[in-house]
Amino acid sequence: MSENKGNPNVLVISAHALDFVWRCGGTIAKYSNAGSNVRIINLTLGERGESGDLWNGIENATEEQVKEIRTDEANKASEILGAELKIMDMGDHPLITDKENIIDLVKELREFQPEIILTHFTGDPLNPDHPEAAKLFYKALRAAQVPGVEPDTKILGPVKTFMFEPDQPEFCGFNPDAFIDITDVMEIKEKAMTVSESQKYMFDNYSRRAAYRGYIASRVSGNKEIKNAEAFKRFAPYTGQFFS
Amino acid sequence: MSENKGNPNVLVISAHALDFVWRCGGTIAKYSNAGSNVRIINLTLGERGESGDLWNGIENATEEQVKEIRTDEANKASEILGAELKIMDMGDHPLITDKENIIDLVKELREFQPEIILTHFTGDPLNPDHPEAAKLFYKALRAAQVPGVEPDTKILGPVKTFMFEPDQPEFCGFNPDAFIDITDVMEIKEKAMTVSESQKYMFDNYSRRAAYRGYIASRVSGNKEIKNAEAFKRFAPYTGQFFS
Amino acid sequence: MSENKGNPNVLVISAHALDFVWRCGGTIAKYSNAGSNVRIINLTLGERGESGDLWNGIENATEEQVKEIRTDEANKASEILGAELKIMDMGDHPLITDKENIIDLVKELREFQPEIILTHFTGDPLNPDHPEAAKLFYKALRAAQVPGVEPDTKILGPVKTFMFEPDQPEFCGFNPDAFIDITDVMEIKEKAMTVSESQKYMFDNYSRRAAYRGYIASRVSGNKEIKNAEAFKRFAPYTGQFFS
Amino acid sequence: MSENKGNPNVLVISAHALDFVWRCGGTIAKYSNAGSNVRIINLTLGERGESGDLWNGIENATEEQVKEIRTDEANKASEILGAELKIMDMGDHPLITDKENIIDLVKELREFQPEIILTHFTGDPLNPDHPEAAKLFYKALRAAQVPGVEPDTKILGPVKTFMFEPDQPEFCGFNPDAFIDITDVMEIKEKAMTVSESQKYMFDNYSRRAAYRGYIASRVSGNKEIKNAEAFKRFAPYTGQFFS
Amino acid sequence: MSENKGNPNVLVISAHALDFVWRCGGTIAKYSNAGSNVRIINLTLGERGESGDLWNGIENATEEQVKEIRTDEANKASEILGAELKIMDMGDHPLITDKENIIDLVKELREFQPEIILTHFTGDPLNPDHPEAAKLFYKALRAAQVPGVEPDTKILGPVKTFMFEPDQPEFCGFNPDAFIDITDVMEIKEKAMTVSESQKYMFDNYSRRAAYRGYIASRVSGNKEIKNAEAFKRFAPYTGQFFS
Amino acid sequence: MSENKGNPNVLVISAHALDFVWRCGGTIAKYSNAGSNVRIINLTLGERGESGDLWNGIENATEEQVKEIRTDEANKASEILGAELKIMDMGDHPLITDKENIIDLVKELREFQPEIILTHFTGDPLNPDHPEAAKLFYKALRAAQVPGVEPDTKILGPVKTFMFEPDQPEFCGFNPDAFIDITDVMEIKEKAMTVSESQKYMFDNYSRRAAYRGYIASRVSGNKEIKNAEAFKRFAPYTGQFFS
Repeated sequence: MSENKGNPNVLVISAHALDFVWRCGGTIAKYSNAGSNVRIINLTLGERGESGDLWNGIENATEEQVKEIRTDEANKASEILGAELKIMDMGDHPLITDKENIIDLVKELREFQPEIILTHFTGDPLNPDHPEAAKLFYKALRAAQVPGVEPDTKILGPVKTFMFEPDQPEFCGFNPDAFIDITDVMEIKEKAMTVSESQKYMFDNYSRRAAYRGYIASRVSGNKEIKNAEAFKRFAPYTGQFFS
Repeated sequence: MSENKGNPNVLVISAHALDFVWRCGGTIAKYSNAGSNVRIINLTLGERGESGDLWNGIENATEEQVKEIRTDEANKASEILGAELKIMDMGDHPLITDKENIIDLVKELREFQPEIILTHFTGDPLNPDHPEAAKLFYKALRAAQVPGVEPDTKILGPVKTFMFEPDQPEFCGFNPDAFIDITDVMEIKEKAMTVSESQKYMFDNYSRRAAYRGYIASRVSGNKEIKNAEAFKRFAPYTGQFFS
Repeated sequence: MSENKGNPNVLVISAHALDFVWRCGGTIAKYSNAGSNVRIINLTLGERGESGDLWNGIENATEEQVKEIRTDEANKASEILGAELKIMDMGDHPLITDKENIIDLVKELREFQPEIILTHFTGDPLNPDHPEAAKLFYKALRAAQVPGVEPDTKILGPVKTFMFEPDQPEFCGFNPDAFIDITDVMEIKEKAMTVSESQKYMFDNYSRRAAYRGYIASRVSGNKEIKNAEAFKRFAPYTGQFFS
Repeated sequence: MSENKGNPNVLVISAHALDFVWRCGGTIAKYSNAGSNVRIINLTLGERGESGDLWNGIENATEEQVKEIRTDEANKASEILGAELKIMDMGDHPLITDKENIIDLVKELREFQPEIILTHFTGDPLNPDHPEAAKLFYKALRAAQVPGVEPDTKILGPVKTFMFEPDQPEFCGFNPDAFIDITDVMEIKEKAMTVSESQKYMFDNYSRRAAYRGYIASRVSGNKEIKNAEAFKRFAPYTGQFFS
Repeated sequence: MSENKGNPNVLVISAHALDFVWRCGGTIAKYSNAGSNVRIINLTLGERGESGDLWNGIENATEEQVKEIRTDEANKASEILGAELKIMDMGDHPLITDKENIIDLVKELREFQPEIILTHFTGDPLNPDHPEAAKLFYKALRAAQVPGVEPDTKILGPVKTFMFEPDQPEFCGFNPDAFIDITDVMEIKEKAMTVSESQKYMFDNYSRRAAYRGYIASRVSGNKEIKNAEAFKRFAPYTGQFFS
Repeated sequence: MSENKGNPNVLVISAHALDFVWRCGGTIAKYSNAGSNVRIINLTLGERGESGDLWNGIENATEEQVKEIRTDEANKASEILGAELKIMDMGDHPLITDKENIIDLVKELREFQPEIILTHFTGDPLNPDHPEAAKLFYKALRAAQVPGVEPDTKILGPVKTFMFEPDQPEFCGFNPDAFIDITDVMEIKEKAMTVSESQKYMFDNYSRRAAYRGYIASRVSGNKEIKNAEAFKRFAPYTGQFFS
């Protein structure tokens, strides 16, 4: 009653430099360890809005300086998690996307041909770049799957998309329906969470979040071995020969 | 990247005599064919509310007569689908359940030890016996999984529950998140749908519904082989090592 | 492009003695004036929970005294609105209904054969007798429309149900989708609202509510003649040859 | 108790070339047969995203070629349904609209002066051009009904808007509250569905969908004559002298 | 058990010229009377869409003329309510905002340093400038609270935001969770509502709305002294040492 | 701008023996420390469903034995938190309540005259005794506030109710809108969490939950001093002279 999928190509679309670490770093490590190609696309480096420690710590910091440091951190974290990194540099706070951004992302989707995509949830009024990223994604997804757009490139096949957890889930209306057990890769995630020297604060919060989600996943499944987990919401329904 | 579950025990909790055929007959056949033990519990025979053809067709029909015929049909359909049938006979239209019914169902759950349960959705103001069945179920589920209830019987282990589609899904707020491809067992489902002689009407509707759901499932998954499907909503989130 | 329905039988199912006045008195008058038979069923007299002025005003009041006065008021109000009144006296605060209450209401539905039913909304945690009445109603509705329940009485035909506005609509999740213009019968509603001597307070509130709803209805429809309205939510979708 | 509206002008705002056929072709035929002027506005020809068969079937197809064929199909279908067609050609996949598009649509609304409008539902992450069309519509609707916008043209009067069914209704949160019986014009809809030679696939799906919606409408209304229907959601509440 | 907040700076972000009067004029007066600095930002003058009386009353009216009159009315109303007024003049019907508008609003937020913000609700398909204003606001709020945006200006501290009531609350999904008792400043609000000579209509509606909300607030709180109120929805949860 | 409420009487209605510790122990300690009378009503001792360690640890345990131990633990925990305890012993798993239970709770409410009530959330299909307790509560609340029920006892005045967090908040649709900072009483809560010897497991989970909620509350409020918090949902809207 198993359905073996091989090692799917996994694409992560992350609005800011380290979103991919906090929100799905464990799941990235999991797939990477299992032999999948995992690629991360950073739409921006979060240079303006998610780099407070740098702006506060460096006198007269400039966007270019901050972007350089953040690029370095993002590269280190990706490497630890076993994934490639690609930076699209669309500018954050606010991230405002247009037709050209959509087509650029279509090209990325077609080039990498992912079977699984991890990205932001569609709602978050507290961090509006995140839903902007989600909308950019689903516009690009649709365009990537129809033949009349960029007709010279290879159309994207079927994809399963999972939206990762926002910082304040209930406030955003995020109701997770899929938990990935990251107990066996928690150490890798922890290591990735330390690339950003100054962010001890985030390390604590997201270690605790993983344990909280581990508790929920363990209660829901009855599997007492689960200590750490990440929470997701499926974009489209599950379809299969049997239940999962 | 597969997660083999062997052949899970599957329990179907159906409010009325043939609910299990229309709503999840294909999925029952699927599991039964794959080697699972499938047991159906009929809370009632639908003798008052879902036997219109009998009441209209037999002069001075009595509840006992109707129940007899419905029992016969339910047995035939179960057999065709490869499942055992158990009738709890709680009385329908209205089905009103109490503490004793809950404990009775606890005993059934503990005796059969299902790993997968299929039952009604929690909302349906047009057919109130259905949500009553759903509530009876989740009260019994909780009670079956704690040690202080009926302490002499074996506690129920982890279970995955899926709620099947009501007759008018949007009206009931039913938003399916799992589709089972029943293309390869559609003939069996069709055969089971014919046990009730007079219900050509239902046969047509539920053949068409299966094709409609097959279309949706095919679009969602990109799998063009899917011709017929059944729609479900997970009761509790998915938990796993990888996405499904 | 008109669809003439003649003068439908209209049934109002009201949890407490004067709910029917405040919430749909104008609509009752409208149908009554147009030639419909309108019957009101009071499940209770609201003798415990909606008769504060009587309990406060009469020294050592008893339930029987209060019920008598409320019966009188309810009769007067019904007469002014042009409707018959029937009192089922199930006891209020809390109204707790059982199988027998459902069957009793089935008999009423079958006897009167309404085509339109007005009743309470399904949600209201501030006044739990109201959703209890709504649930009693929809259980009885289903049972009244199937042949195996009380097989010696005439089955109920198709019915359109509209749920009237609770006291605090947004709190209850009440989102009205049908407004009835009661401008031409507002005087009759006002008269009915005065049967209860002590309730000047309610008179003011529900005159103002009618004007508030009139404003909304006027804005939504672009019809500036609407000065007063009542708000409802359809129970089941509209079906027709053309849009309404 | 009837409310005769004469023959309202009906406007259909369709994102892509044949959306209007699949989603409301029956309703168009219905109004057209009854004497209404029906006009269809195609915001785009769906040349990139809904013309897969053409892109796959024609070697080195160009957007211009595809648009020509789609224009031809759209004209044929409109004629069969008894409606005029107007193409705004805003470009699809992605359809991204701006202030100028809004004002252009304002002019169309004012010129045609519709009383009934049929358009897309506000939510559909699987086909983002559809909600983009819905938002374009409601921004234009508001602007068309206030005097300070394009002050030299005739302001738009009251309008009733109905949003038609997306491809995957539950996924989009579409909960229909109005069903139009298209049994008597089903043949016309079927004919219109054949203008696109290659789309046998869509013909099958939307014939079956009409029968599925016919079943739902028949159950909800108790009217057994309904065999085929189309499903809609009202944009704003119903307002009237009596219930519909 | 009290939590004294001193006199917070209060900022009102209003899409059109007099939105701030109808929707939160009483609350403005309340804070102003208590010693707060209250500043109103009008994103537009509502010159095209909310000045119907002017367009209808002045022959060959021009946008400039209308804006002049509206500026005058807005200034008068602000003065009566005890608040400063600032006009950003972004153009209405449709209000379409871009990155530059966001940054402009960031500068305003940082310059005034509000502790409380009142603005539009995030949903209103009937008046799309209102949700556009709400989205502009929350994008600017986030950007104003991170250090990398406009790094030479003083970052905005913690803020409490409350969204005021749209014209048709249930239709917009507005579910108020905070009511401000404006009984003691109702006269001031009434005076402010008369600055626009021609809008007797609005005066009546919003006097009645205040009384309706006063009734709801009085019922919810048990405080019979409340005669008039304004309704709001918190943007983010309450946090405190004790309940409020 | 402060609103001093003195020291309100606080009532906690808890379905099972130690629900009050995990879910609102910090808030209880907070009010108790500040001088409030806090009373806890345990509807049951959770003897069947929330005492797994006892059933597993004691050979041939009986309900009476388990209840005795749980009573002892509940008393100890209440004392640590500074509250009185009252046990109603209605029987758990399933907790099924009737009219008499409602009236019994009415008497408790009237006798204690709480101004603040903490109780369970209205939804939780995974632990159905919890919503049963919530419904029992709101039926009793309404009945306690009207004069015709138990007319010889003193009617209950205005009350503010807050529903505490279920074990799996998103699954239950729990969206907290009030966070209480329990940083200064966290040690007391921790001590109370240790009364149940065997429940180290719960101690860990609810310490972590408090820190998780502290993080959320700190982010939402901008108050970095908040380390631990408890999450609640208001039952009815806030009403006041100023915002809280």
